[in-house]
Amino acid sequence: MERIVTTDLPSHVGRRVLLQGWLQRERHLARVSFALIRDRAGTAQIVAERPLALPAETVVEVEGDVRASAQAPGGVELHEPDVRVLARAAAPSPVELHRPDPLESLPHRLDHAAVALRHPRVRDRFRLAARSVAAFRAALDDGGFTEIQTPKIVASATEGGANVFRIDYFGRDAYLAQSPQFYKQTMVGVFERVYEVGPVFRAEPHDTGRHLAEYVSLDAELGFIRDHHDVITLVREVVSAMLDAVGEPVPAEMPVVDFAEVRTGSEDDLSPADERRICGEYGELVFVQGFPTAKRPFYTHPDPARPEFSRGFDLLFRGLEIVTGGQRLHRYDDYLAALAARGTDPAPFGGYLEAFRYGMPPHGGFALGLERWTAQLLGLRNVRETTLFPRDRNRVAP
Amino acid sequence: MERIVTTDLPSHVGRRVLLQGWLQRERHLARVSFALIRDRAGTAQIVAERPLALPAETVVEVEGDVRASAQAPGGVELHEPDVRVLARAAAPSPVELHRPDPLESLPHRLDHAAVALRHPRVRDRFRLAARSVAAFRAALDDGGFTEIQTPKIVASATEGGANVFRIDYFGRDAYLAQSPQFYKQTMVGVFERVYEVGPVFRAEPHDTGRHLAEYVSLDAELGFIRDHHDVITLVREVVSAMLDAVGEPVPAEMPVVDFAEVRTGSEDDLSPADERRICGEYGELVFVQGFPTAKRPFYTHPDPARPEFSRGFDLLFRGLEIVTGGQRLHRYDDYLAALAARGTDPAPFGGYLEAFRYGMPPHGGFALGLERWTAQLLGLRNVRETTLFPRDRNRVAP
Repeated sequence: MERIVTTDLPSHVGRRVLLQGWLQRERHLARVSFALIRDRAGTAQIVAERPLALPAETVVEVEGDVRASAQAPGGVELHEPDVRVLARAAAPSPVELHRPDPLESLPHRLDHAAVALRHPRVRDRFRLAARSVAAFRAALDDGGFTEIQTPKIVASATEGGANVFRIDYFGRDAYLAQSPQFYKQTMVGVFERVYEVGPVFRAEPHDTGRHLAEYVSLDAELGFIRDHHDVITLVREVVSAMLDAVGEPVPAEMPVVDFAEVRTGSEDDLSPADERRICGEYGELVFVQGFPTAKRPFYTHPDPARPEFSRGFDLLFRGLEIVTGGQRLHRYDDYLAALAARGTDPAPFGGYLEAFRYGMPPHGGFALGLERWTAQLLGLRNVRETTLFPRDRNRVAP
Repeated sequence: MERIVTTDLPSHVGRRVLLQGWLQRERHLARVSFALIRDRAGTAQIVAERPLALPAETVVEVEGDVRASAQAPGGVELHEPDVRVLARAAAPSPVELHRPDPLESLPHRLDHAAVALRHPRVRDRFRLAARSVAAFRAALDDGGFTEIQTPKIVASATEGGANVFRIDYFGRDAYLAQSPQFYKQTMVGVFERVYEVGPVFRAEPHDTGRHLAEYVSLDAELGFIRDHHDVITLVREVVSAMLDAVGEPVPAEMPVVDFAEVRTGSEDDLSPADERRICGEYGELVFVQGFPTAKRPFYTHPDPARPEFSRGFDLLFRGLEIVTGGQRLHRYDDYLAALAARGTDPAPFGGYLEAFRYGMPPHGGFALGLERWTAQLLGLRNVRETTLFPRDRNRVAP
């Protein structure tokens, strides 16, 4: 008999079917036993005369008759079940998967991620993330972008200086890429418009709900722009597509405000409290443009009208920065000048600078952190809730 | 004026248009100068009365009149050009981009990847790779698979033992994942069917045209299979979709042959020469099943009828292994027994084994190396030709 999944049951009332899945929970009453079976699509109730008497999370296949039942979850249930055990759970589950929401502490759930991630609501978070990523790619594919894969092992700890992981690379030092920034810019010279979805690595000393040592970055970069407003337009399109893909309304406006207008006093960056305040004042999705040039990376394009401020921007989503972007420098001489102004030796940047030496158009791009995006969508305050196996300074397993 | 790309020119004959791109080459005749401009879509010929006298790879925008011309590449060219320089190349290009195929040596082109990758034929390789990846995802999305992202920093050098890169992780040792194997299996317990496209890392001592220290692995894993033939069926579907997406014919058959029948003598693995011979004999795409259990990883499911052979398989494509797959063990006790039989301490596998402790269905999966796939599609003998920025024991930059 061909297997069906639990969500197919309503169209099979009156027929005998085969389900496969995990025994999520069993309740015994006087003359009847109700078992919940979970598969990739959902859950279904099995009604048996005798208890199955199997530990939770045992993998089973069940043949049974589909009957409509107003009381059953989903309006259907399986009767006269014939149950076969495919793999018996070897111990009682360390987490309770039948609760509407997980009750265990986050550290406990992270320690037992292999089982804790099976919770239907937790599992759904990652499907939401997957749909978001698919929409990101589809929006950029439509715009003529090419998907690229760039190396995560790099020769020098150039981009950020600190916060970089060192690797033993065949007996010498190499590093984990903190972002695909240099490579995606270089690829503007090849494809004009590129995107990448991949891991980035930060030896992040902070232990907060917003930071991870490894996270998934959704990166895009495009050439032949006028200024950073073309990048902002692209971010609006992409984020709208991502919201739409997960069933969230797209705000009628995503205003652009100026850093100098919204900062607290004369501070040269935004605090988490500033980010919440700005969203409270301007809306769910707010672009902040014109960050101080000195606070942005050396490749950031200054605003020609006021060079102490840049053409870099952030996008705040419900009070948290989820996107960083901007126009980049594109002239070779401007790069040499920007590095000299910061007292930085250009030698380790040789491979990167070559792209500009041989002609690069005005360009810009952005990066969106996937785990933050999903957390903000769901109102979760810790990105570890939206990471399958989070990495931070205290955790590198499971 | 709104920019158009070079491939839009035929539908704009008789109109004045704006192109943007790189000056690929200029040829001066007595009274006329022909310049080729390259953009993301293709190239176009500009006809000017005076030489532009700009170095190759200078970024320009050109307004001009589109005229049909039988001699021009693409049947159209731009006359009466008005050229504006966006970014002047600062030096003569280290590679010649106007040749039908690149002439420079591979090491030279890798050293100057930022420019060498701009060669139209080289660039096209990576578009072919991107289309392949998109087809891989689409085929699996259709099959109810969920895309996942699993960590690349892992706690122990468990999977392969050797060939693993060590990281300084906040003062202690961690490692780069050699594959998403353990995590994708664990995720079968959550989503039943998963896939991942991401980097994998091998401290590969071999210096061959087939090996890289970092490459892109296309991984899938699915639960509730009968045996490895269900995985082979999935690979057939996915590879057919990938071939179709790049305009390659799909072979009518992808035969499955038995390792014991096709090996040389009593050898316990296939050599590169064996792989070429088998494809010569059986076809472009050949599955070899039943590799010796002792030569496959501990999680490989033995063939119950002859346990010294496994339910592991490879897929050979035009004489090279591009896919490894198989059915995995799924019972907790079988894992403990398999580790004990190899004399391996189960402790470092704790997080992985938990998935099996709490119920896992019969499952299997496969991994396809993207760079090898693209190289075989194009008949290129070195995977460094199909990697943007290859990493090997001698190269970690640019």
